Amino acid sequence: MHRIVVDAMGGDLAPDEIIKGAAEASLSLRGTEIILVGDSSELGRRLPKVRHDGARMRVHHAATFVEMDEKPGEALAAKPDSSIAVAADLVARGEGDALVSAGNTGASVLACARRWKLLPNVRRAALAAVYPTELRRGEKEDPFSLILDVGATIDAEADDLVGFAVMGAVYARLVSKNRRPRVALLSNGTEAGKGPPAIVAAHARLVSATELNFIGNIEGLDIPRGVADVVVTSGFVGNVVLKMLEGVSETVVRLARYAHKEKLAWRIGLMALSSAIEQLKQVTDWQQYGGAPLLGFAHPFIKAHGRSNARAITNAIKVAHKALTGDLCGNIEKGLAELEATRHKATPSPS
Amino acid sequence: MHRIVVDAMGGDLAPDEIIKGAAEASLSLRGTEIILVGDSSELGRRLPKVRHDGARMRVHHAATFVEMDEKPGEALAAKPDSSIAVAADLVARGEGDALVSAGNTGASVLACARRWKLLPNVRRAALAAVYPTELRRGEKEDPFSLILDVGATIDAEADDLVGFAVMGAVYARLVSKNRRPRVALLSNGTEAGKGPPAIVAAHARLVSATELNFIGNIEGLDIPRGVADVVVTSGFVGNVVLKMLEGVSETVVRLARYAHKEKLAWRIGLMALSSAIEQLKQVTDWQQYGGAPLLGFAHPFIKAHGRSNARAITNAIKVAHKALTGDLCGNIEKGLAELEATRHKATPSPS
Repeated sequence: MHRIVVDAMGGDLAPDEIIKGAAEASLSLRGTEIILVGDSSELGRRLPKVRHDGARMRVHHAATFVEMDEKPGEALAAKPDSSIAVAADLVARGEGDALVSAGNTGASVLACARRWKLLPNVRRAALAAVYPTELRRGEKEDPFSLILDVGATIDAEADDLVGFAVMGAVYARLVSKNRRPRVALLSNGTEAGKGPPAIVAAHARLVSATELNFIGNIEGLDIPRGVADVVVTSGFVGNVVLKMLEGVSETVVRLARYAHKEKLAWRIGLMALSSAIEQLKQVTDWQQYGGAPLLGFAHPFIKAHGRSNARAITNAIKVAHKALTGDLCGNIEKGLAELEATRHKATPSPS
Repeated sequence: MHRIVVDAMGGDLAPDEIIKGAAEASLSLRGTEIILVGDSSELGRRLPKVRHDGARMRVHHAATFVEMDEKPGEALAAKPDSSIAVAADLVARGEGDALVSAGNTGASVLACARRWKLLPNVRRAALAAVYPTELRRGEKEDPFSLILDVGATIDAEADDLVGFAVMGAVYARLVSKNRRPRVALLSNGTEAGKGPPAIVAAHARLVSATELNFIGNIEGLDIPRGVADVVVTSGFVGNVVLKMLEGVSETVVRLARYAHKEKLAWRIGLMALSSAIEQLKQVTDWQQYGGAPLLGFAHPFIKAHGRSNARAITNAIKVAHKALTGDLCGNIEKGLAELEATRHKATPSPS
């Protein structure tokens, strides 16, 4: 029986949509217990109004919660009994196996980082996100790729980037059912020598990592093209890039308004296209794809988007379930151990 | 009389489109001499076939040229008599006042860097590029903003970023006729403390730079929104971001192909919109806006896009002309001197 801990108080639409999403997951996921963490009287009042499997769902009390716009460090210091802190504690103590939250990203990553152990050979954890691409990939033909780190930390050294590559590949294999995901480093040119020193050094190490399908450096243009299944970069660059991608549809709509204003003939096209744009948004909708996994710790944490509705929460819980069933953390540990073995083999031994 | 040196052999469409663009500029720009650098027999054969002002246009011989895909350092070493090297030399020796090239970006930046002097108080030069935004700005209502550095160097320290901010603001004032351009730092959050150490330190310095209209940090999402007129970042991040933006229209068209395939009703909308998309591309077309200025040297260099046609070259020459008329380099020098003065004033003197 897997136990998935859900921060019921985190997210723009918490707690109602979180409760609904978790309730739906309790009905559809067999062999899983869902632990809702939050104000027990409030949750106790709301949960019975939603159809759920009472035998596989329970509430764990947390007196307060971290607001979406609070500063992570300060909030956690001021609220040791916040839902995200209590939820991360439950998993750290072995009373839960995975964590799902749509709350304050910084606070939830920090809550895990302070309580959870990093896997062996992991120097830094990474938050991975999905982004829409033209190319579809894996058995499920997912129209998105994985990019990491998108902000668990800021800077990344060469060894961190190599670790991100392995963790991203393991996740893509497991969750997207992509057997041999193409892994790439984001740089300012495709040649091996392009980029800051950390990228150049990581490139050299990844080329010799035979377990990975490393396709080399890619440029910014290649991200939306979908050239790689797993895009590796530092948390700072990943964050900037991800936020730009989030804005792509928005930008198009805005640019289209020029057209709208400027020429009557274009309006007709725009009106006809507006439903298509709406549908396109759905195709590229992160809500369908669960959330961003935090990789590198001994337990899976799936960070759902702050704007998550019930469906997004159900999907995030399903991703957490898949991560547990497929032993995501064990496989990351194995992948990194293999990489270490290759590295030691590659280092000429003194004779 | 301003003398603008044009690399006639650089660019995908060189030399024909370069010659045509320069010829057109010779007809429309009064008080300017244009010096075409390239194979003199080839240019001497082609130039007479294009209408131009013979009194204000001449050819300067260069035996070879750097190909678009050559490695900058190697190419310049192997070809000391390449058109870009000869052109940069002319300006360095005082036989020309500004440089325009659509050739190999790395080689042309390197050719200038090796021959030209940095302005006082400039630590690193920066290549600035325009990107399309929803908001229009300046007297000319330009629908684009400036982003720098986009790849003159890779890493940038706090002082480099501050210099980029000043240089970008001077350029926006002069070329976009934007009197009080909003300057922002690209980071992973809008708070002052967000980002790698260099960004945080640059933020602190920019806040106290009273001559600048510094609006703080912006995030990736804010770039296409046009929140800032001048976006300051390191060459590595700028390059990644710029290439992603270049791909925005492409991505939309590609994503739209899903729709095209998947639903008949959408096709009609797409067909109706295709001409609008074509027009939108023109609105956001860098070819109309000259090119990317290299800022920080004692002479202006306008790097036109590799795919530049005659119109783009004419516009790049016009931007170079505007940079000379408005004394771009002198104003950058003045802006940086003012900043230095503020800095020394801000430092408490020992008493």
